[in-house]
Amino acid sequence: MLSTLRGASRAISRKVSIPVTTKLQQARPIHNTVRKHAVAAANVAVDSVSSYEPYFPNEPTKPSVKTEIPGPKSKIAITELDEVFDTRSLNMICDYENSIGNYISDHDHNVLLDVYAQIASIPVGYNNPALSAVASSPEMLTALINRPALGNFPPASWMNTLKSGILSVAPKGLNQVFTGMSGSDANECAYKAAFMYHRRRERGEGAPFTEEELQSAMNNKKPGSPELAIMSFKKGFHGRLFGSLSTTRSKPIHKIDIPSFNWPQARFPQLKYPLEDFVAENQAEEAACIAEVEEILTKWHCPVSAVVIEPIQSEGGDFHASPKFFQDLRAVTQKHNVLLIVDEVQTGVGATGKFWAHDHWNLQSPPDIVTFSKKAQTAGYYFGNPQLRPNMAYRQFNTWMGDPARVLLFNTIIKEVERLSLVQNTAETGEYLYNGLAELSKKYPEEIQNLRGKGQGTFIAWDSPQRDAFLKKMKTVGVNIGGSGESAVRLRPMLVFQQHHANILLESIEKVIKA
Amino acid sequence: MLSTLRGASRAISRKVSIPVTTKLQQARPIHNTVRKHAVAAANVAVDSVSSYEPYFPNEPTKPSVKTEIPGPKSKIAITELDEVFDTRSLNMICDYENSIGNYISDHDHNVLLDVYAQIASIPVGYNNPALSAVASSPEMLTALINRPALGNFPPASWMNTLKSGILSVAPKGLNQVFTGMSGSDANECAYKAAFMYHRRRERGEGAPFTEEELQSAMNNKKPGSPELAIMSFKKGFHGRLFGSLSTTRSKPIHKIDIPSFNWPQARFPQLKYPLEDFVAENQAEEAACIAEVEEILTKWHCPVSAVVIEPIQSEGGDFHASPKFFQDLRAVTQKHNVLLIVDEVQTGVGATGKFWAHDHWNLQSPPDIVTFSKKAQTAGYYFGNPQLRPNMAYRQFNTWMGDPARVLLFNTIIKEVERLSLVQNTAETGEYLYNGLAELSKKYPEEIQNLRGKGQGTFIAWDSPQRDAFLKKMKTVGVNIGGSGESAVRLRPMLVFQQHHANILLESIEKVIKA
Repeated sequence: MLSTLRGASRAISRKVSIPVTTKLQQARPIHNTVRKHAVAAANVAVDSVSSYEPYFPNEPTKPSVKTEIPGPKSKIAITELDEVFDTRSLNMICDYENSIGNYISDHDHNVLLDVYAQIASIPVGYNNPALSAVASSPEMLTALINRPALGNFPPASWMNTLKSGILSVAPKGLNQVFTGMSGSDANECAYKAAFMYHRRRERGEGAPFTEEELQSAMNNKKPGSPELAIMSFKKGFHGRLFGSLSTTRSKPIHKIDIPSFNWPQARFPQLKYPLEDFVAENQAEEAACIAEVEEILTKWHCPVSAVVIEPIQSEGGDFHASPKFFQDLRAVTQKHNVLLIVDEVQTGVGATGKFWAHDHWNLQSPPDIVTFSKKAQTAGYYFGNPQLRPNMAYRQFNTWMGDPARVLLFNTIIKEVERLSLVQNTAETGEYLYNGLAELSKKYPEEIQNLRGKGQGTFIAWDSPQRDAFLKKMKTVGVNIGGSGESAVRLRPMLVFQQHHANILLESIEKVIKA
Repeated sequence: MLSTLRGASRAISRKVSIPVTTKLQQARPIHNTVRKHAVAAANVAVDSVSSYEPYFPNEPTKPSVKTEIPGPKSKIAITELDEVFDTRSLNMICDYENSIGNYISDHDHNVLLDVYAQIASIPVGYNNPALSAVASSPEMLTALINRPALGNFPPASWMNTLKSGILSVAPKGLNQVFTGMSGSDANECAYKAAFMYHRRRERGEGAPFTEEELQSAMNNKKPGSPELAIMSFKKGFHGRLFGSLSTTRSKPIHKIDIPSFNWPQARFPQLKYPLEDFVAENQAEEAACIAEVEEILTKWHCPVSAVVIEPIQSEGGDFHASPKFFQDLRAVTQKHNVLLIVDEVQTGVGATGKFWAHDHWNLQSPPDIVTFSKKAQTAGYYFGNPQLRPNMAYRQFNTWMGDPARVLLFNTIIKEVERLSLVQNTAETGEYLYNGLAELSKKYPEEIQNLRGKGQGTFIAWDSPQRDAFLKKMKTVGVNIGGSGESAVRLRPMLVFQQHHANILLESIEKVIKA
């Protein structure tokens, strides 16, 4: 079946040359293949750009597994490393110098197709030539060795760095950025912005802090340290520092023994699959969840300043909801004057077939804040409302406020995404991959349950009855793949994952299921 | 007076060559000057290494101020930058390409002696050749462009990176490291380690989590999310995320409007200066503070899992305490089975005349955890007790767990500190500078009050009656200098700050005071 699909689309392909728009690329120019094809199980013909010329011409053509994983060299290295560094979560000891594109090498020279990509955080392939070029540039050198305290002493180039790169992909309706260090950091700074904005509105514009507020804040007491909340969703993941962890609801192991704020959670829709068979049930489920949100926003014991949500709950188990759900959520947050923070740490930067996953929602009014990290290789939050800048200096501040070296990498990633039409690639490769998985799930309905992520690029998942064993066996056939939640297999390939990689992945999955 | 001092020490100097122990250095070999001298106002002769040959041969010989600061070009750049980035905390728009060593250049080509150093975070000078070499190395390239999820997929080189660098300077008694992104992140991860350890001891080794704990943690409720506290000190600063901010007590502007945990604070000693005139009062003050610590540890409404303290309270106003105070603090925390976390984010990496400021205390038993950031150019925490590794994988974990690129820089900073004997340099240049300031404070007792930091390297501060005006005027004479707390001028020069820089600084201070 798979080979038929592949052959069919090949047969109707024609090659066009995509112009090279940057001098950074050291590899040969990319020839993409543009074609129209009727995708299996899709009812409409779609315009399609897929690459039969690989983005990485020197990539291996297939995985190569020579030893068990971890192999003998890796085992020794793990034992040594464990003396000084906790290795219980270790997956593979890697050889990054010999990794390329979608392929990761380990210390025993095993080479795996990587559809986990450093927990969804590698965007444009290992040893990407454009990243290599910017990493060797004079701008990178100075950013690395003269690290500024950006809030006090920004370089003269900082405005251009922001405007020409990081802000050029700002979500629609947002035009400001606060740069940070990690997803947790980005979310917590966003929460702080929401709290300061909340109190600004309550206090009234221009009203000074009272003496009581100033003094009580120093004692961690009301009214200076107010009782305010961020609402999140069951199974949501927003990070592991104290504020972000209070909104994280993925697994007990993330939270147990750590003090947390008494903040509320609403249910996130638990949709039934295939979606077309459960239209009414799923609509009812989403409506019930929105009702629960409204109940919390009106009845929680303290005011809720913001709602934070992932477009696709990732760490918690790959749960999706419809654009209608998110539109309703936007409406209910606006109705109750509560900010909407969209956490695009895992979904952002192209993997869902849109640059930002919330672009799928067609909101009338944008989210108030959008946070990012992972594939951006840096972190931060976007906003549009100028009042989300606190009313005084030094309220949202820290020494580094991000890392200009990592921002330069994000800017180059953005250029690569544009130059190679990588968002279009994930949309189309994702559709191809989804259709292949849909075929497999018909063939092996017990092994591939609740297939989800249709139309969401390569952001695809399913439930597997013996998930952890499945993930482990996938390594033996040369695929590095991850899980999420209790039972989901989550696909998080890079943006440079192409149809020929999808074919290897599909064949490998079938091989493991059959075995 | 200053010129006499300088002349006298010059007259008795002799030159020796310090061997170059790394190939990274691109500048010419450093010739240091070793001498014995009786320092003014010091009662003992000290062994002294000071550099009359500068570490940066191409450094300017003095500041050069051509325009007001910000000058015309900077003003335009600030207006443009403000469209997308909050500039109210902006101090100078910088030209890092043309900054060198201890001198920072701005966008209008003003060149200032920098004794603030990016809020105490530049260790070995702008455009340091050794950092430049490592930033251009193949190791840096791969660390930048193939950013790993270190907990899952560390590179094979990671053990050596840790052991040969970051762990080679681990505080005495500590031999493990957890790497992170920033000072706030390092402190919060340390707090999490303390909470997990606390509950591990309560639960008993090997005891499983109860079902009630697992479920309640998901609801942010006891017993899974326990009520436990970190104790800090008044005027302490430990970061600005939600957990770290709950321990920060520096200024209301850092805390107001942000929800916080109900955690306790004890008074930090408020010593009177000069120390030799207030021996009994200061001993009593420190004993009273220790008594308050013990009172809190025994009577707070919930258990205190750890005490966090800065060796020198920095952001809060440069407050010092004696080694005896810290020895007593260690004793009282041990007596009550409470962890001692030493926050060396600002004090660590050489500026106090020791590599770690707490090396001054001669503790019988080391701190449980030491956190670092800033001059390390990366962040994290050290520990020694193996039980501070949580009892299960994935409890202390996040996607990146630090940045190997920044760790490579720290490792090179460590080599530079050793090669150039920079800890000895800060001890001796600090003593020279302190003595010069002591002279000035005798001459201008109203302008330089409560001079402090004797014997603490270049970590020197004093109170100024019109501090903010003083800091501003220092720019007009070519010195970039910072404040802390309400009224303190804080000196935070780099580790490559030498006697000839101290002379410029002292002369500039006198010039501003006179004017």
